[in-house]
Amino acid sequence: MSEVKKIKPQLSKGTRDFLPGEVAKRNYIFDTIKIVFRKYGFEEIETPAIERLETLTGKYGEEGDKLLFKILNSGDYLKDVPKEELAVGNSHLATKYIAEKGLRYDLTVPLARYVVQHQDNLAFPFKRFHIGPVWRADRPQKGRYQEFYQCDADVIGSNSLMNEVELTKIYVEVFLKLGLDVSIRINNRKILEAIAAYAGCRENLTGLTTIIDKVDKIGIEGVANELGKLSLTEEQQQKIYSLLQTKNLSSFSSVFKDTEIGKKGIEELEFVLSIAGSKNVVFDITLARGLNYYTGTIWEVVCNNVQMGSIASGGRYDNLTEMFGGQNMSGVGISFGIERIYDVMEELNLFPETISQGVKVLFVPRDQSAEEFTFLQVQQLRDAGIAAEIFLGNVKKQKQFAYAEQKNIAFLVEVGENETQLGKFRLRNAKTRDIQNDLTLTDIIQLLA
Amino acid sequence: MSEVKKIKPQLSKGTRDFLPGEVAKRNYIFDTIKIVFRKYGFEEIETPAIERLETLTGKYGEEGDKLLFKILNSGDYLKDVPKEELAVGNSHLATKYIAEKGLRYDLTVPLARYVVQHQDNLAFPFKRFHIGPVWRADRPQKGRYQEFYQCDADVIGSNSLMNEVELTKIYVEVFLKLGLDVSIRINNRKILEAIAAYAGCRENLTGLTTIIDKVDKIGIEGVANELGKLSLTEEQQQKIYSLLQTKNLSSFSSVFKDTEIGKKGIEELEFVLSIAGSKNVVFDITLARGLNYYTGTIWEVVCNNVQMGSIASGGRYDNLTEMFGGQNMSGVGISFGIERIYDVMEELNLFPETISQGVKVLFVPRDQSAEEFTFLQVQQLRDAGIAAEIFLGNVKKQKQFAYAEQKNIAFLVEVGENETQLGKFRLRNAKTRDIQNDLTLTDIIQLLA
Repeated sequence: MSEVKKIKPQLSKGTRDFLPGEVAKRNYIFDTIKIVFRKYGFEEIETPAIERLETLTGKYGEEGDKLLFKILNSGDYLKDVPKEELAVGNSHLATKYIAEKGLRYDLTVPLARYVVQHQDNLAFPFKRFHIGPVWRADRPQKGRYQEFYQCDADVIGSNSLMNEVELTKIYVEVFLKLGLDVSIRINNRKILEAIAAYAGCRENLTGLTTIIDKVDKIGIEGVANELGKLSLTEEQQQKIYSLLQTKNLSSFSSVFKDTEIGKKGIEELEFVLSIAGSKNVVFDITLARGLNYYTGTIWEVVCNNVQMGSIASGGRYDNLTEMFGGQNMSGVGISFGIERIYDVMEELNLFPETISQGVKVLFVPRDQSAEEFTFLQVQQLRDAGIAAEIFLGNVKKQKQFAYAEQKNIAFLVEVGENETQLGKFRLRNAKTRDIQNDLTLTDIIQLLA
Repeated sequence: MSEVKKIKPQLSKGTRDFLPGEVAKRNYIFDTIKIVFRKYGFEEIETPAIERLETLTGKYGEEGDKLLFKILNSGDYLKDVPKEELAVGNSHLATKYIAEKGLRYDLTVPLARYVVQHQDNLAFPFKRFHIGPVWRADRPQKGRYQEFYQCDADVIGSNSLMNEVELTKIYVEVFLKLGLDVSIRINNRKILEAIAAYAGCRENLTGLTTIIDKVDKIGIEGVANELGKLSLTEEQQQKIYSLLQTKNLSSFSSVFKDTEIGKKGIEELEFVLSIAGSKNVVFDITLARGLNYYTGTIWEVVCNNVQMGSIASGGRYDNLTEMFGGQNMSGVGISFGIERIYDVMEELNLFPETISQGVKVLFVPRDQSAEEFTFLQVQQLRDAGIAAEIFLGNVKKQKQFAYAEQKNIAFLVEVGENETQLGKFRLRNAKTRDIQNDLTLTDIIQLLA
């Protein structure tokens, strides 16, 4: 390989490497969530990174289609492009001839495909979780990557609102375990639909939810302003604006006493709150969620002491599998914004120090003649289930300590002629430099087990 | 989304979905390996799926370059292709204008890039492991996928042969834990080089290793035949052929007593075998490993009771990071062939039955009025750390049992009016259908904890 020309080591833009300490912290978040998912009966699945473009295209709107990473067909990929189109150089037209695969944009559309494709082999209601990377050709910026993780749990094939209760409880439990003080905001799309109906502008529902969805950024006054841009009368705007300022769910009951969809939405929300309600779970009529496919309960989780936007979100959707021919498969799911949760926990210093502690003790042979004996000691520790390492690098003391510090190894043992002959060791605390003398290997095993 | 045209749910060729039971088994293999890696001081890292094509191209030979998945640039990707080249429709020439990213082909080249790029933030010797998917545009066939997992552990920046000892021990321990009876074949590239030198055809080393590498498929006679195709004299062929039939490492000592590289190779191998040798670790002069970058110890692991080819392999390479400007970073690494190990374990029925057992007990409310009470019971089990589920589907008994069976849930509890009032339950074994009557929730918690 030495004839290969040297190139600068660099990442593709918008992608990241993870150092060992970062992986340990990310795994801590993943594992915490996985334990809770599993306790509630969710099973892990996996779908491929590569999907047919046919599966992905048209599911995320026009903007989303542009953000799909497309994979060039193998071999002579230009051969199928009509010559005249090639001459024009129209990228948009050429794509369908030269790329039939793409990278998944989220885990939700692959789930819909998966459920329909494997329905005969799945237990319904199908409760699955999936944690994995997704790819978007977004312009990279602080906190936004082209390759990032999603972490979803969904129930497919059950209308029961008890699913909403359980998913709310999962949110509560996970964030409690992570030590994050959060508000789990909850609303119901049916109530938003009822607001539109009540104001006599049901045809404007999509525009309305898009506006409400911005309330975090533009404030309630900003919403009033935006409402003015829809073709609504003063009175309609006023009705909507006033309802959006209503904090109390019960106040909606009288307003919607004759609106079927409104009554249903309130009933659903009341049920969920009656069982899963807690001080962290709060009704919020200004929660809308941009995505069009939600039809019932919606969630959004924000951190109470860090400005970060939502760190988790979800909702019920009734028609997701329809595009693949699935029928009667109402779904409801929640998602954790892993990347933001990581940032918040880092900012609040919430990662336990122990998680990056892989190896407990580092054995350092003083010279090569001590290596084999040292190795045999280390091997005995490992046989006892203790993570241990033999240092095979530069034996300068300073280097050893630096190595132990960087790998967060708590103890050091040097092995030379004396130790080899007597089988007694000095166990040194790598941080405090405290020493325990005259320990047998059995002593060390007992101390560290 | 209902206006989206319906399409057939299908995978991109050469990719796979994993059902919950399959993920559980794959995780069992991953976790077993991870525990051992960590015990030996290896830390997990992650690199992105997407790399710059500049990083990937030219590292895997001409064939490898063809198998790289290339990602179409975003936006108007054709705009940079010179008009005249576009008109010709030459795919090969066009690629450099329309694709600057690709999917990683293995975890090794990304490791080389990573180590050089982050060398100031890593502890050396750098011991890392990485488990993740890689992509190759190979023609899919039984057992060969376009997206599959690799699982590697490497040590970068240490010449010590003790690393070889440790990696051999990792092989022994992992396969023991997985219950696989294996032969860990070991050889040293320096000895193969010495054979070529001894036969006076050092310039033929690459051709020679390529031929030896085929011995598994074509047998030792086939090798003799292939040797005839190299431009070697009868005598040279005979010398090589006879050495390849030598089983005993010590027999090589006298042959290579004047060959520096041969003596070195034997010395290295003897050192590794003297400490890590066992009945499963066997010297095999016919082990060559196709990859050109190996310079010392090489391994290959085969399963003793299943015909499957190698299920793991590795070796020492001295110059891997050079292409990115890295210096003095000798490396040595091993790799587990996860996909084949899975197939072997499936064939030998080696997966413990317990691994797909997520939830321990399924609570079934007899009707909707019992749902809330049932949920509260389930929640108490979960609070006690027991994975439990409330069944929210069709309440026909048959469906419940089918659900429990498919999710490998051991126990069932039906909850109706009686249970709600008395707080006493019938715990039914889902397999044997045996019943334990009159249990309080506390009893159940004690039974299942």
